[in-house]
Amino acid sequence: MPTLRRQGRDRVISRLFDAIKDIAASYDIKAIGIGCPGPLDSKKGIVLSPPNLPGWRNVRIKEMVGKRFRVPAAVENDANCAGLGESVAGAGKRASSMVLLTLGTGIGSAIVLEGRLWTGKGGFASELGHVSVDINGPRCECGNRGCIELYASATGVVRRMKKASWSKAALTAEDVFRNAGRGDKKARKIVDETAYYLGCALANIVNALDPELIVLAGGMTRAGRGFVRKAEQIMRKRALRESSRAVKVTVSKLGDDAGLIGAAWRAKEL
Amino acid sequence: MPTLRRQGRDRVISRLFDAIKDIAASYDIKAIGIGCPGPLDSKKGIVLSPPNLPGWRNVRIKEMVGKRFRVPAAVENDANCAGLGESVAGAGKRASSMVLLTLGTGIGSAIVLEGRLWTGKGGFASELGHVSVDINGPRCECGNRGCIELYASATGVVRRMKKASWSKAALTAEDVFRNAGRGDKKARKIVDETAYYLGCALANIVNALDPELIVLAGGMTRAGRGFVRKAEQIMRKRALRESSRAVKVTVSKLGDDAGLIGAAWRAKEL
Repeated sequence: MPTLRRQGRDRVISRLFDAIKDIAASYDIKAIGIGCPGPLDSKKGIVLSPPNLPGWRNVRIKEMVGKRFRVPAAVENDANCAGLGESVAGAGKRASSMVLLTLGTGIGSAIVLEGRLWTGKGGFASELGHVSVDINGPRCECGNRGCIELYASATGVVRRMKKASWSKAALTAEDVFRNAGRGDKKARKIVDETAYYLGCALANIVNALDPELIVLAGGMTRAGRGFVRKAEQIMRKRALRESSRAVKVTVSKLGDDAGLIGAAWRAKEL
Repeated sequence: MPTLRRQGRDRVISRLFDAIKDIAASYDIKAIGIGCPGPLDSKKGIVLSPPNLPGWRNVRIKEMVGKRFRVPAAVENDANCAGLGESVAGAGKRASSMVLLTLGTGIGSAIVLEGRLWTGKGGFASELGHVSVDINGPRCECGNRGCIELYASATGVVRRMKKASWSKAALTAEDVFRNAGRGDKKARKIVDETAYYLGCALANIVNALDPELIVLAGGMTRAGRGFVRKAEQIMRKRALRESSRAVKVTVSKLGDDAGLIGAAWRAKEL
């Protein structure tokens, strides 16, 4: 179901409860896993104040769901859920360590080490979209500069395309990739640059973590193997030889289901 | 004992064996832990070809030491040993997760998560000195560009100071810090810039890993609390609020002993 977040917090939650009720009518629910945009306190199960969920502030979603349905509930960042999903049932099934990057409106990411999410001391780890690749670069909404999210997210692609073409027309990252595929030179350049930035960010990840596998997800990675392959080449050129030779790069297997499966897994782990 | 690496591989190894023999005369040795410059294959215990150990190439040090003294031996990257040492017996004793950065000739680093080193799929993880903070920056010997090691290592400080002062005189990072302390404006600027670069790199680490603690080691961090404090301020300004508020930054407690203790711990874990 779509979130329909613009209908406001209470409406989203009541629709969520209805959906669980429907499932509970046919299945015996033992636990409920909730994937949700961050930042959130996953231990206490509190949604703090996600920029993507207007009106949500300190919502004790774990407690609310747990009480209502009288089963234990787990709450986890949606990107972490997607990473866990790919790790247990998708592209990372055979990998001992894996990093997931989802290139969407922003860049979501997850770090899975030996089958377990690394969520950090406070549950705020793996914000790899806000690793800066140019500390003197443009300002990011997060307060930092040159975050990779500014370059390699769908939003970043559209922003850079509009700037390059002096255009104010409505445009999506899909349009840019389609135009590049049709031979539009400006769009081609934007796509190539995006692969370059992404490759540089992957090199940083590989040097820092030496993971077995990197999984790329989101519309842009489905738009063409060429884009992913180019980013991979840049990474192998930039990262240290020992780790970059061994790391594998692939695309998501589960697509939008990854987050659902990961959230369910989180509940199973309770 | 100093390594005296210029005397060549065989001489270094024979002096190492003599040292162990001396200890074995007074103590009952159960296992031997070896900390060594990377890159190395820590599982097989093979020193690959460290730039800091000329003449060493594919040396099976674990096998050599183990056979000679008939005890199990463990081999680990020296920066990882230092991180493990600080974690089990030093500044990180009470932290559940810790990142160590040693600012020396290069930048060594270690990632300790829940008391265990994260060494990566092939043992090459935590090369945080080669995380780029400016992908269009100056070329690094590793093949990448803008690695933080170029800015915040002792070598980087000296290089930048020489460039700023048009000087070819012999100079150490210690000199630069001492001159800055005495009010030399150019030196002051280099030290401040170094803290800035280091702070930006710390922000990347915090956003990626949300560790409980960051431990800084090496001569420069002993040169003045002001330098470390400034880097810490930059980090807190740049990193995401949730994780940067919670992370602690401190300096090494064990100094040069950290690596010895960490190597011994590695042997204990066998």
